[in-house]
Amino acid sequence: MRHLAAAFASVREQSCRLVQPLSAEDCCVQSMPDASPAKWHLAHTTWFFETFILERFESAFQPFHPAFRVLFNSYYEGVGEQHPRAQRGLMTRPALAEVLAYRQNVDQRLLALLAQVPAADIAGELATLVELGLQHEQQHQELLLTDIKHLLSMNPLLPPYHGPDATADADAGREQARALRWQPFEAGIVEVGHVGQGFFFDNETPRHRQFVEPFSMASRLVSNGEYLAFMEDGGYRNPLLWLAAGWDWVMQQKITQPLYWHQAQAQFDSAWREFTLHGPQPLALHEAVTHLSFFEAEAYARWAGARLPTEAEWEAAAAGGSLQGEDYFGVAWQWTTSSYAPYPGYVALPGAVGEYNGKFMVNQYVLRGSSAATPHGHARLSYRNFFPATARWQFSGIRLARS
Amino acid sequence: MRHLAAAFASVREQSCRLVQPLSAEDCCVQSMPDASPAKWHLAHTTWFFETFILERFESAFQPFHPAFRVLFNSYYEGVGEQHPRAQRGLMTRPALAEVLAYRQNVDQRLLALLAQVPAADIAGELATLVELGLQHEQQHQELLLTDIKHLLSMNPLLPPYHGPDATADADAGREQARALRWQPFEAGIVEVGHVGQGFFFDNETPRHRQFVEPFSMASRLVSNGEYLAFMEDGGYRNPLLWLAAGWDWVMQQKITQPLYWHQAQAQFDSAWREFTLHGPQPLALHEAVTHLSFFEAEAYARWAGARLPTEAEWEAAAAGGSLQGEDYFGVAWQWTTSSYAPYPGYVALPGAVGEYNGKFMVNQYVLRGSSAATPHGHARLSYRNFFPATARWQFSGIRLARS
Amino acid sequence: MRHLAAAFASVREQSCRLVQPLSAEDCCVQSMPDASPAKWHLAHTTWFFETFILERFESAFQPFHPAFRVLFNSYYEGVGEQHPRAQRGLMTRPALAEVLAYRQNVDQRLLALLAQVPAADIAGELATLVELGLQHEQQHQELLLTDIKHLLSMNPLLPPYHGPDATADADAGREQARALRWQPFEAGIVEVGHVGQGFFFDNETPRHRQFVEPFSMASRLVSNGEYLAFMEDGGYRNPLLWLAAGWDWVMQQKITQPLYWHQAQAQFDSAWREFTLHGPQPLALHEAVTHLSFFEAEAYARWAGARLPTEAEWEAAAAGGSLQGEDYFGVAWQWTTSSYAPYPGYVALPGAVGEYNGKFMVNQYVLRGSSAATPHGHARLSYRNFFPATARWQFSGIRLARS
Amino acid sequence: MRHLAAAFASVREQSCRLVQPLSAEDCCVQSMPDASPAKWHLAHTTWFFETFILERFESAFQPFHPAFRVLFNSYYEGVGEQHPRAQRGLMTRPALAEVLAYRQNVDQRLLALLAQVPAADIAGELATLVELGLQHEQQHQELLLTDIKHLLSMNPLLPPYHGPDATADADAGREQARALRWQPFEAGIVEVGHVGQGFFFDNETPRHRQFVEPFSMASRLVSNGEYLAFMEDGGYRNPLLWLAAGWDWVMQQKITQPLYWHQAQAQFDSAWREFTLHGPQPLALHEAVTHLSFFEAEAYARWAGARLPTEAEWEAAAAGGSLQGEDYFGVAWQWTTSSYAPYPGYVALPGAVGEYNGKFMVNQYVLRGSSAATPHGHARLSYRNFFPATARWQFSGIRLARS
Repeated sequence: MRHLAAAFASVREQSCRLVQPLSAEDCCVQSMPDASPAKWHLAHTTWFFETFILERFESAFQPFHPAFRVLFNSYYEGVGEQHPRAQRGLMTRPALAEVLAYRQNVDQRLLALLAQVPAADIAGELATLVELGLQHEQQHQELLLTDIKHLLSMNPLLPPYHGPDATADADAGREQARALRWQPFEAGIVEVGHVGQGFFFDNETPRHRQFVEPFSMASRLVSNGEYLAFMEDGGYRNPLLWLAAGWDWVMQQKITQPLYWHQAQAQFDSAWREFTLHGPQPLALHEAVTHLSFFEAEAYARWAGARLPTEAEWEAAAAGGSLQGEDYFGVAWQWTTSSYAPYPGYVALPGAVGEYNGKFMVNQYVLRGSSAATPHGHARLSYRNFFPATARWQFSGIRLARS
Repeated sequence: MRHLAAAFASVREQSCRLVQPLSAEDCCVQSMPDASPAKWHLAHTTWFFETFILERFESAFQPFHPAFRVLFNSYYEGVGEQHPRAQRGLMTRPALAEVLAYRQNVDQRLLALLAQVPAADIAGELATLVELGLQHEQQHQELLLTDIKHLLSMNPLLPPYHGPDATADADAGREQARALRWQPFEAGIVEVGHVGQGFFFDNETPRHRQFVEPFSMASRLVSNGEYLAFMEDGGYRNPLLWLAAGWDWVMQQKITQPLYWHQAQAQFDSAWREFTLHGPQPLALHEAVTHLSFFEAEAYARWAGARLPTEAEWEAAAAGGSLQGEDYFGVAWQWTTSSYAPYPGYVALPGAVGEYNGKFMVNQYVLRGSSAATPHGHARLSYRNFFPATARWQFSGIRLARS
Repeated sequence: MRHLAAAFASVREQSCRLVQPLSAEDCCVQSMPDASPAKWHLAHTTWFFETFILERFESAFQPFHPAFRVLFNSYYEGVGEQHPRAQRGLMTRPALAEVLAYRQNVDQRLLALLAQVPAADIAGELATLVELGLQHEQQHQELLLTDIKHLLSMNPLLPPYHGPDATADADAGREQARALRWQPFEAGIVEVGHVGQGFFFDNETPRHRQFVEPFSMASRLVSNGEYLAFMEDGGYRNPLLWLAAGWDWVMQQKITQPLYWHQAQAQFDSAWREFTLHGPQPLALHEAVTHLSFFEAEAYARWAGARLPTEAEWEAAAAGGSLQGEDYFGVAWQWTTSSYAPYPGYVALPGAVGEYNGKFMVNQYVLRGSSAATPHGHARLSYRNFFPATARWQFSGIRLARS
Repeated sequence: MRHLAAAFASVREQSCRLVQPLSAEDCCVQSMPDASPAKWHLAHTTWFFETFILERFESAFQPFHPAFRVLFNSYYEGVGEQHPRAQRGLMTRPALAEVLAYRQNVDQRLLALLAQVPAADIAGELATLVELGLQHEQQHQELLLTDIKHLLSMNPLLPPYHGPDATADADAGREQARALRWQPFEAGIVEVGHVGQGFFFDNETPRHRQFVEPFSMASRLVSNGEYLAFMEDGGYRNPLLWLAAGWDWVMQQKITQPLYWHQAQAQFDSAWREFTLHGPQPLALHEAVTHLSFFEAEAYARWAGARLPTEAEWEAAAAGGSLQGEDYFGVAWQWTTSSYAPYPGYVALPGAVGEYNGKFMVNQYVLRGSSAATPHGHARLSYRNFFPATARWQFSGIRLARS
């Protein structure tokens, strides 16, 4: 129990640390419907604990504020109505200070609850829900960083974020200068999905068997320099390299480079620069390319004479060794060619909390691994991240595969 | 000169007073593309003085911040590029505090400039531009209030604004309980447009002649209670009362009442309430109805067996007496049936500042008078306000006319 | 009565003559929501006679087809439901042949009705409605030509129309080589609106007085060559020449020339060509420019140091002489700067037929005169045509004015 | 060779037979961007033979019409430009008669080519391309029927199609009155993909191994009556039954029943009816439900306590017996839960014809089996049909599975 309380305090504190470099204004604004304000992340993660735990386990439960149940409900139809997603940025009230007070109130009540409950019971449903809430909060910590990066990138002043050390690394990338090797894997039945004692989301289960034909996996991620070669070879102008829907997207959105790349205009060298959480930086050619859509990753792979891996291939390869420097984790999420779908025998969690994962299993593609913005201890082999094929504001990159 | 400096200080101070009840978050967010953040209003009005006056008259001019020239340019193509209007709310930087510092800096420089210039010169171009800047700022003071009202209305918490006394009256309306009388006017040539010594915008000139056929004008504005009768008579469900484009708008936007009216749900009396700058209030039946589109005003007039006045009729009637309690000014802007168009012989101001009025003379309808949110001393007989036929977030109401 | 029957037969026959060069396919398709299929024009004009006349005056009235009352109702809410405008082109049934049979049936019944009614009664409501129906049909004859021109222009094969002689002239234009003179008019009260015995629409009444300040009017329309000079001077690239909404339109729609102009690609001379009802033709520099939006007409006028006339100015000038070769009629509709609005004292026709004109009096601009596509005898001094500021598929051109 | 020529003549003739009950108008119009005019189907399938075969193998090749190469190119970037998809219905020229002449011309030239070529060569590339062209044409025959059904359904007259006997059955469905049984399958490795001598598309290869966990498959398709029970149980009003994106679609599009179902209004029994190729019919409760989106199929399955099968499960089950009356083929396409993706080792055909399948492998879901509208001999075990999750105008139904 003390362990859980300590974990709770630590994760909750980290969210507050992430917003310390930000003003109340920075925390309030929503830069696009896909992104949420930092203040909303702070409140919604608190709402999760209040609604799914305090409301159920606290005797004489009183909501912190009666309107918050709707205001900070993201998408749980089982809980009831939700404030429209695209209007999250209009909530100048409650103020940031009130949301921080909300956090403090719920934290105290939850810690009190944990202290009351007999240790024997902790192994049960309460502990499971607290752990789920912490994992949920960690997911939002990464989203908070990607959403803030997007907001700052929309500002012509291109201000840096100046985050805490750990997270300032989100854009650090990792050297990719070593030669790319192809690691071969033989055909056979592999097991896919969560195994063991640690935490997992329902979408990682049940562990099941898949047959994988022979394939090879790249020993590292694609670098900025390699991606630049694709661009300089006319990658964004050749329809034959793209999925039809990807080409339509490139044409309609006038896409010509990764999300945060830009060329210094009116300068003698017109060098490529990239907006990062540290502000604009010269493009680091040897680091992993990030902020790519599935469409861009897929087109690059075709240009490179390769393809994206499937989930099963990725999990088998990452499990089978993951040598030093292969960057399966901690650099960039890696697009797979697998549509986000239920594993055979998948059953969602019961109750409203069961809307967590399953209802998004359509028209999204799975990313595996983790990024430099993923909280420490949050990633694991069976973790399934997922986004639509056009999403680019996450730290998403490319690991190539071949049949 | 001292008079101008005093006026400058007073108007500039009033803008700051308007945002005092607001948080930095309140001042940053843009609730719809038509509205602007309060912080943007504070910065743009300052930009006007810096760009059109300091840049021209200050020796050794240095911009306060090199990026502001684009960031806070609203629509002056002659000045150069503009930050996209729909993205004004994404500017969490500069922070509110920096914008207030920008105001102070420009205020000091402008007052210094006024102190330097020989009195004889003041009658000239500099004084004219300062006066234009102050009138411009007063326009934005009213917009700031209507934009804040819209933002707060989008928040499910429906927070009140708590403005300074003078502006808290914006929603006060005025008693409309007296019986409506029809004041007759004979046919004849009337003069329309600005006359005299005071300030005027270019769109109020040249003063010219119009022939007006006989008409009658209502002695007061339409009240909430009268408008409610229109609603209860099925006004929003009868296409024959509406212009075709108005009916399309009603159907597509599902319009069923004035912008800020709502019925208390789940209450035994389901009484009508109206969101005001003081928060939600019971509907005051005898006060003037406001926040109507041109389409609603026009449909109401048809239902009432009347019509909207033309600009010339309004100006003739308002000039010819405007008895106590007729509310030509200070309650609500009054839609006319006149499209916003140049007066015969109209010439825009020279230079970039000439983009002020003329380039908007299409697909907009003129409103006359002023509202309770209009700054003191800003209204006048020849003043031409204008908005598209669907605009509702201004304090816009109805004065009826008849042929 | 015999005169009315003869006029009826003649106008009705002309509609059929217009579609003779067209296939059933040509008559069925709708090229954009603003345009209607030729078959729909044939059916709707027939519906007008059936619904407003036969249904009312024919004893033992039976509809030709019970579904046509909704199918071919354009916008008369008083008649009832309407088939959605944007879906007019989906009606492959009734076939063209059935619609022609519908026409024959209604024609016979209407002629029989006219033959039955005592001559004395003809001067009354029946005759008025028949005359209204014929004027209505003539309006649709011009629309049919402009809609067919638009449809054929969307076909990469750019097929010609090969219409009957009279209408083949629609694109003939008229020589504009003579020098442009400015005809001066003095200030004074003018009478505007219909006067006399002939037919008129309700929107041309009541005749009323307007005061017009001194102005001059151009002696002819603007030519293709003059408009080309505007283009070559960067007219479409200079925001200072445009109304703000016009500039937005130019940017968003990527407008760079009049609707049907195109430059022959891959040819050595890259000469300008214009798609006409005769197919593509070399641009005739001395003919009147047509197919311009209000925005383009207004921008051209500003570039030329002039402006568009008001309705009153146009009517006064056209009444006061209209010398040979001044082209007030029969070449191109002439945009005015007047928004389409009710004349003082305007009253719509009673009943459903009263939805004809009045309900469109918002966000449209008046065009005066007539074009080469206007049926003979349809034009008159007080005629008010009207379209939105972006409409370009009509034969719309420019006559300049000056204060 | 004679066999191929006979097959060619037979398939080509069938396309013409399908349009015999249709007028030129019916064949010209496009009812939505997803659908194409019948005339376009006739021309595009001919273009396929002309472009991919005659242009390559015919000595002294001359195109039938130089503009057709662009006009009737669907999406082959390797061939060059394409006429915009949403504008296929604007092509009133070439007329239907010209398109039929185009067909005849290409047919004669292709048969002449087949007659010239030595038999030994026929087994080679030419024969492969002819066979591909015929399969391609058969796909368009089914699309032609679904597109015509959609067009006629948009007509308030709801006209029937009156097709040839074979195709008139497209809406015949099949009795589903027998009880639904669950057929169990054991876990194990199955082979998926094309095997044997017959024709196949590239997307059915390479045949490969998949591991399938234990599952059961329904012995027949879901019936109209069963689907009606889902509706009557509030299926379209309960968000917990739907994928999140499916629920958004239901709300935004106001979906309340399968595409062609409607309730007879103003009738005493308000019975459900379904628009079919025979016109409106009473809903046949025991026939298979069709015209469902993936979202509806998936929600129904959840309501029924089951799920959709994967491709591998479907293929294994259909291969393993497919007893009389199980309706794997010939009734309705069956949605699977498998996103359309490349098989391991998939390689597209070389050249422009390789754009046939692979470039659509994103955001689409696979349907297996065939429908009553599928041409005889076109279906096979490994066939992969695919549509977006919202598509409803195909004959798409539901076969349930369970883990």
